[in-house]
Amino acid sequence: MNANQPATRGRGGAGERQISRVFRALADPTRRAVVAQLSQRPASMTELARPFKMALPSFAQHLEVLEECGVVQSRKEGRVRNYRLVPQPLAAAENWMVTQRAVWEQRLDQLEQYVERMKSEER
Amino acid sequence: MNANQPATRGRGGAGERQISRVFRALADPTRRAVVAQLSQRPASMTELARPFKMALPSFAQHLEVLEECGVVQSRKEGRVRNYRLVPQPLAAAENWMVTQRAVWEQRLDQLEQYVERMKSEER
Repeated sequence: MNANQPATRGRGGAGERQISRVFRALADPTRRAVVAQLSQRPASMTELARPFKMALPSFAQHLEVLEECGVVQSRKEGRVRNYRLVPQPLAAAENWMVTQRAVWEQRLDQLEQYVERMKSEER
Repeated sequence: MNANQPATRGRGGAGERQISRVFRALADPTRRAVVAQLSQRPASMTELARPFKMALPSFAQHLEVLEECGVVQSRKEGRVRNYRLVPQPLAAAENWMVTQRAVWEQRLDQLEQYVERMKSEER
């Protein structure tokens, strides 16, 4: 029952697995900060690492997690590795959240209408 | 560099930690399916467990993860434990995603305007 185990228990296909990996990647404040930084502009590994008090190899591992789930892409240019955000995997995870909220809000609306109806019948 | 380690590395406070826990909880397809089910209506543990080929103690652990991060609440009524969705923690995580997308889309708009300007100057 470990959030880190591969999400391959037969529920859904590749899409579900990618959503699991994106959520897992976002479950860390350092990685979320990197995503926030790359939302503003592409950046090199050195630039991205600057705000963090962390050894570069540890930081590089965070970038790897983000790259493995497709949220960022990197490219070596000369001696510099540059990173950019890839919005699609984040959008898929966001869509999942939006869908649940829509279902929940619809139910709440129905409940509200029901209460209103009961009230007006009471009068 | 484990997505499962507590997100207590000093970046942000309780809010950041809760967002980390919510994303970690959502990084599993069984737990996402439970959230989807509870978006529709509250349900007992037995009802929630029904669609899954999983031993009840394993399933109960998934529910625990969801309850610990505040996404669901449970209440024992007689011999039945009932669960309901709590939308606020999900909303906090969703807001984080929406914010990043807004920043990214704004940048894209600016880039588009820049390209348009360059094109019209060329003509």
